[in-house]
Amino acid sequence: MSKSLKVVTIGGGSSYTPEIVEGFIKRHKSIPIKELWLVDIEEGYEKLMIVGNLAKRMVKKAGINMDIHLTINRKEALKDADFVTTQLRVGLLDARIKDERIPLSHGMLGQETNGFGGFMKALRTIPVILDIAKEMEQLCPNAWLINFSNPSGMVTEAVQRFSRIKCIGLCNVPINMTKSVAELLGHEQFLLHFIGMNHYVWAKHLYYDGKDILQEMLPKILEQESERAVVKNIRPISWNKDFIISTGMMPCPYHRYYYMHDDILQEELEDFSRGKTRAETVKSVEAKLFELYKDMNLDKKPKELEERGGAYYSDTACDLIKAIYTDSREIMVVNVRNNNTIASLPDDAVIETSAVITRAGAIPLSISSLPDVAQSELLQLKTFERLTIEAAITGDYNTALRALTHNPLVKHGKITQIVFDELLEAHKDYLDKWNKLD
Amino acid sequence: MSKSLKVVTIGGGSSYTPEIVEGFIKRHKSIPIKELWLVDIEEGYEKLMIVGNLAKRMVKKAGINMDIHLTINRKEALKDADFVTTQLRVGLLDARIKDERIPLSHGMLGQETNGFGGFMKALRTIPVILDIAKEMEQLCPNAWLINFSNPSGMVTEAVQRFSRIKCIGLCNVPINMTKSVAELLGHEQFLLHFIGMNHYVWAKHLYYDGKDILQEMLPKILEQESERAVVKNIRPISWNKDFIISTGMMPCPYHRYYYMHDDILQEELEDFSRGKTRAETVKSVEAKLFELYKDMNLDKKPKELEERGGAYYSDTACDLIKAIYTDSREIMVVNVRNNNTIASLPDDAVIETSAVITRAGAIPLSISSLPDVAQSELLQLKTFERLTIEAAITGDYNTALRALTHNPLVKHGKITQIVFDELLEAHKDYLDKWNKLD
Amino acid sequence: MSKSLKVVTIGGGSSYTPEIVEGFIKRHKSIPIKELWLVDIEEGYEKLMIVGNLAKRMVKKAGINMDIHLTINRKEALKDADFVTTQLRVGLLDARIKDERIPLSHGMLGQETNGFGGFMKALRTIPVILDIAKEMEQLCPNAWLINFSNPSGMVTEAVQRFSRIKCIGLCNVPINMTKSVAELLGHEQFLLHFIGMNHYVWAKHLYYDGKDILQEMLPKILEQESERAVVKNIRPISWNKDFIISTGMMPCPYHRYYYMHDDILQEELEDFSRGKTRAETVKSVEAKLFELYKDMNLDKKPKELEERGGAYYSDTACDLIKAIYTDSREIMVVNVRNNNTIASLPDDAVIETSAVITRAGAIPLSISSLPDVAQSELLQLKTFERLTIEAAITGDYNTALRALTHNPLVKHGKITQIVFDELLEAHKDYLDKWNKLD
Amino acid sequence: MSKSLKVVTIGGGSSYTPEIVEGFIKRHKSIPIKELWLVDIEEGYEKLMIVGNLAKRMVKKAGINMDIHLTINRKEALKDADFVTTQLRVGLLDARIKDERIPLSHGMLGQETNGFGGFMKALRTIPVILDIAKEMEQLCPNAWLINFSNPSGMVTEAVQRFSRIKCIGLCNVPINMTKSVAELLGHEQFLLHFIGMNHYVWAKHLYYDGKDILQEMLPKILEQESERAVVKNIRPISWNKDFIISTGMMPCPYHRYYYMHDDILQEELEDFSRGKTRAETVKSVEAKLFELYKDMNLDKKPKELEERGGAYYSDTACDLIKAIYTDSREIMVVNVRNNNTIASLPDDAVIETSAVITRAGAIPLSISSLPDVAQSELLQLKTFERLTIEAAITGDYNTALRALTHNPLVKHGKITQIVFDELLEAHKDYLDKWNKLD
Repeated sequence: MSKSLKVVTIGGGSSYTPEIVEGFIKRHKSIPIKELWLVDIEEGYEKLMIVGNLAKRMVKKAGINMDIHLTINRKEALKDADFVTTQLRVGLLDARIKDERIPLSHGMLGQETNGFGGFMKALRTIPVILDIAKEMEQLCPNAWLINFSNPSGMVTEAVQRFSRIKCIGLCNVPINMTKSVAELLGHEQFLLHFIGMNHYVWAKHLYYDGKDILQEMLPKILEQESERAVVKNIRPISWNKDFIISTGMMPCPYHRYYYMHDDILQEELEDFSRGKTRAETVKSVEAKLFELYKDMNLDKKPKELEERGGAYYSDTACDLIKAIYTDSREIMVVNVRNNNTIASLPDDAVIETSAVITRAGAIPLSISSLPDVAQSELLQLKTFERLTIEAAITGDYNTALRALTHNPLVKHGKITQIVFDELLEAHKDYLDKWNKLD
Repeated sequence: MSKSLKVVTIGGGSSYTPEIVEGFIKRHKSIPIKELWLVDIEEGYEKLMIVGNLAKRMVKKAGINMDIHLTINRKEALKDADFVTTQLRVGLLDARIKDERIPLSHGMLGQETNGFGGFMKALRTIPVILDIAKEMEQLCPNAWLINFSNPSGMVTEAVQRFSRIKCIGLCNVPINMTKSVAELLGHEQFLLHFIGMNHYVWAKHLYYDGKDILQEMLPKILEQESERAVVKNIRPISWNKDFIISTGMMPCPYHRYYYMHDDILQEELEDFSRGKTRAETVKSVEAKLFELYKDMNLDKKPKELEERGGAYYSDTACDLIKAIYTDSREIMVVNVRNNNTIASLPDDAVIETSAVITRAGAIPLSISSLPDVAQSELLQLKTFERLTIEAAITGDYNTALRALTHNPLVKHGKITQIVFDELLEAHKDYLDKWNKLD
Repeated sequence: MSKSLKVVTIGGGSSYTPEIVEGFIKRHKSIPIKELWLVDIEEGYEKLMIVGNLAKRMVKKAGINMDIHLTINRKEALKDADFVTTQLRVGLLDARIKDERIPLSHGMLGQETNGFGGFMKALRTIPVILDIAKEMEQLCPNAWLINFSNPSGMVTEAVQRFSRIKCIGLCNVPINMTKSVAELLGHEQFLLHFIGMNHYVWAKHLYYDGKDILQEMLPKILEQESERAVVKNIRPISWNKDFIISTGMMPCPYHRYYYMHDDILQEELEDFSRGKTRAETVKSVEAKLFELYKDMNLDKKPKELEERGGAYYSDTACDLIKAIYTDSREIMVVNVRNNNTIASLPDDAVIETSAVITRAGAIPLSISSLPDVAQSELLQLKTFERLTIEAAITGDYNTALRALTHNPLVKHGKITQIVFDELLEAHKDYLDKWNKLD
Repeated sequence: MSKSLKVVTIGGGSSYTPEIVEGFIKRHKSIPIKELWLVDIEEGYEKLMIVGNLAKRMVKKAGINMDIHLTINRKEALKDADFVTTQLRVGLLDARIKDERIPLSHGMLGQETNGFGGFMKALRTIPVILDIAKEMEQLCPNAWLINFSNPSGMVTEAVQRFSRIKCIGLCNVPINMTKSVAELLGHEQFLLHFIGMNHYVWAKHLYYDGKDILQEMLPKILEQESERAVVKNIRPISWNKDFIISTGMMPCPYHRYYYMHDDILQEELEDFSRGKTRAETVKSVEAKLFELYKDMNLDKKPKELEERGGAYYSDTACDLIKAIYTDSREIMVVNVRNNNTIASLPDDAVIETSAVITRAGAIPLSISSLPDVAQSELLQLKTFERLTIEAAITGDYNTALRALTHNPLVKHGKITQIVFDELLEAHKDYLDKWNKLD
């Protein structure tokens, strides 16, 4: 690997950019970035300039030697890159608003990663990421693609199975869970062994001073969790602690979408009836952030960004790049190829788990067999994911319906098609393949 | 096996009894039944006498040598039996009415085999059947238990895993599917190879004149199916034929509960709002049947019984008993031990599939691997079933909740517990173990 | 299937032919063969005429309407055939003599099916059978290929995996085992459930009068076996009965090659030192048979043929053809696609097991899991077989060496290559692919 | 874990002891050992004193604070230990001489780990190690057992499956392979990913500067290997490089026992005929070493110890103890629980693979699926190992024979029992269970 790195951030006009720039500045000694290219599409040019200029001011203030390039010419940016990060959102927040509102209008969750919304987002995002991967095969075939576009598990699996580009997916959920356990233990030297899939991940072991103390800590962990929202965008609906303890594993906040589906649905339907959805809240937060970013005197990441949700995402990406570049062999939680780690899933399925990071990639840790019940749950969701990936690539309508049949947050029957057709129409500008089907 | 058989029918006071008696009369030459014991519980004594006397008149008319015994002393009946059939309903139709009405009152399906109702029925039935199996271990350890009490798959699996009694489960769904294909082909010499679980079974191959013609026949099969209700108690909601064809297998009518869940739910909620559920319809049909049975001049199965639903059930049981007794090695569709037939399920799971019937039991036919998607669906439902069996035996509340978490016809969240608690209260007379928990 | 059948026997000039002809004559009412084509290669023309004329006399004597055609034009014969049987031996008995003598001269077993000899026979036979299958794809794509050319398991697997022709493999070993159990029980109405691979097959269950009596019968079966040679061509070396009983299954006579390898090797080396091998014995028996066949007054299968070894092979082929043609659904032991029946083997591996015979083919019976140890043994041998098939098709030298590395009857090291090179040279006329490599 | 450690070395009177003592001295800053107990049996008292006094001189010279205790009272030593290492040899070198000579006298390899000798060593060693583990359960239940008694894989698996003691097994083979690759690359920053079983392990990936370069390096690795003996006690017989390259993995030197079995056997038989076996060579080396150790002026590990074979073993043990104690999370090659890492082996089988070392134990790295052929080989050897462990614990004669049936270095047939009986007799003082059987 070269001694002076070229890093490319696709979706560089995002409001998150100051976080990743801050991350690179902090780690400048261990990751010698010479060039940081922020890339966006034409429609995002204005935002790219605003946030890009903030980035330049941040670098200048830090007094380090890192060139910031702002461009809408993706190929120019990708040429000879060492690392490419993605934080893109096809169709922007307006698409997310549709993903949420249309299903809610028919009485089901939109939810931008796990529900009907996540399914639509996958259909829009996977072809775009695969296009990027194809360009990378030409322009920077050895570069790493660090994906944090959602749905991260499906996007990463699509790149791994349908391109030759090395790709690792990231999520901030395990980081948040780890931080909350650290707070509880008052220590950092422990190991949470994570296993599962993106947004359906558990901590199965908590190793501390040579012992696995997860079972004894689980009641305290659940107690603590109910006192504060672990992740910004999940409702802190309290669940039946005895039931969770009986599963023997620490669930992630997103497990609520499955175990407490009806309660979340009722709350969201109520918000919806009052004209308020998560996407719309986010959109107004974003608008305010860009107002702040325009301030020529601002030369650091503003505190308000933390309210945006998704905290630690960019920080984690920087840590991962550093771990790869330095061949550090530390353990991080990433989305990687299964390789038998979970026996019920195919070898080439992407899972989310604790892995050793090396310069040659992430190697997952083996783990004692998951309970049958958990393997069954994961197989069901992975079946949904794989059918969704297939639908995103082929544009086949029946494959899409079969995918939806396996999503437990979706209503099944004639209504599935009604909502799907409405969403295809609403997103037709971003779903080329599907338009051709009409 | 002895040359003159003793057969015991538990739940002998059922309205179905004339069908099984007719079946034994028809096959008298190949199954030499010397004694037929109809057993019921004290509360069913009156019905037992009515239908039992009809049975006696039927046998007398047939002029054959088969003694009908009517008793509420189960142990006396079981002593030295060769075959025991079960057609019992713990809590009678009133329990079914509660199973259906309580979930519907909270906006979800009751459904007496697949939904919340089926779950509750399993909790009530499994302990009773296991008591019978324990008595059989003492009184007739080599007898066959032919189960057609629903949920047939779970009940059969419970007996196979938790007693030493040989047990085969039956369902009339595959028979109905076979008859409807026979009608379409205008032939009998074909082989439908069935695979799946009770009430979630597919025909995967249709062998006819040396070829598998399922793919070419599937459109015609679906066409025909939409013209008539294949099974009495399933609403003939039409499904998306293209979608079904894309699965490559012939589904059973019960697949509608999953693929068309929302549509069935809406219809049932409407009926419920008008005060009409399936159980109540059945109850009034039954009352009329018993009026007919009282007629001292009636000496054959009345035509009206066919309207009851469940046609062919008893006929199939007679065929199975004949096949075992004569070691006929014919192929029948039964609920048997998996033994690797479906790779994603445990060896000791009970599946519903085509099997060769021998005097030593049913040996399933191997089959080419099911599509990954189907294996995933079966694993999910089997996980529900195995947790339900465990809950039925242990009476553990959290295990019950975990079972319900895996049932796709149930709403998940606080509502699950609310409905479960209401049902536990409603059925408390039939749920000893659970009462102890209070 | 047509009402008047055309059957083709490839290798029709074999000394076995009178047996298969007798078999067809006996079953003429249920298998209406209009034409029987005996095909051989040019070098076999004289023998074909001798045995073919005997066949004509047999048919004439029987007074039935079956035309016997003798030809060396294989394509003419295959046109529109319904069943094709193979009893060919590439390189004739002289090749077998080399297969046995060359390895023995280096101190290891030749053995024409399991050892180095079987490996070489597979290399010679598989390309020829695949050529036949390719011709069948053109000339009679729906015909059945009934293979009894050895090594039967590998040949059948090669056809199933590398052609579109329907193929079932046969072996007389299970028939002999069944006959010997029938003798012991004094009964025919039992079911031996066989599982394993060709020449490495066990009976795992012996169902009799509704019970599995294998464990109690095993000592008696082993006692009886040691009194007589079960199969002509296996030395009746007595084995440690306690050891066999501890495996819980009834082994086939060929298991001796593994469990008693050293003893058989010592005996064969002794015979070899006295200039006598099995192949040479067989060659002189064959010469005498053909002298008998020439007798114009002979019009039936001569008794002397039974001494040849391989008894019941042809009879079994006739039974199989009848079972397919009549869709009889009886249970026979055949070489078929695994389809998960043995969990440790690939789905498309060919195994030898009890199967239901239908007009659409053989469907194996499921069976409770084999002991881990047996699964391990089968995987090792199947690994040998699959590498051998690959070598036979590709002609790759290292693949061949890797195959031999997994054969437990072969010595491993430099000697493997020495013997292999010597055999390649000896058989160069029948190993086109390999000659090209030189 | 306590801040001042108590370490116990069982078999402390071994000639290896100076190496482990040197190792502890070198790492004294990171592993604060307060007490080092060297334990031996009564027969080993003299040697224990000789080598123990050398150890005391070494510690004194190093000027560190570590108390050396010499004892034959094992329980006193184990009380409250933190780490226990085993380097014992039941029956001493005389037993090994018998393990080698008796099989060779019947024309087969003795080989003290893989062949008949290894099998006998397992029968002697496993009961002794399990006794130690039972004592540890009482006296130091949280201590780590670091096993380097051979056959290391089987001994480790026996402890893991049949005691509650945490146990990790070690072998110097992977260390030697790693050192030889380091020499070739002229670098240390690479990762050899090992997978397999003890003495049947491969390097499957060689990660270097972000790429897997194993395939391109394999020819060079094999070239280098043939120039020098990688492991002292394996004959450097050259193998067919093309054949090895076709397997796609870097084999360990012990693979020669399988791939070049016949060549090694011939060489050993020749040595044997000249009265010279490996064990006898080692015995004379040992005698010389103890002469050296007696020298009161010697206060460091003598250079001559390196000729003994087994170099780096003790060094590796020290590294492992350090990694556990410091929770270093570095990657080492150890014998650990499989946990699905190799799909064809049971979860609780012990495998040898690259693992992350934590204070809570070794967590193996997942790896892309092994080739089918390698999985088959491992399953065969593991079947041998598991039957051997079962035999060692139960003393069942037929289980022992079944184990031997799966060892490819053993001749199969009557000879197996002859040799086994001779070895049982020769070792009867160390095989209590088996004597009872007589």
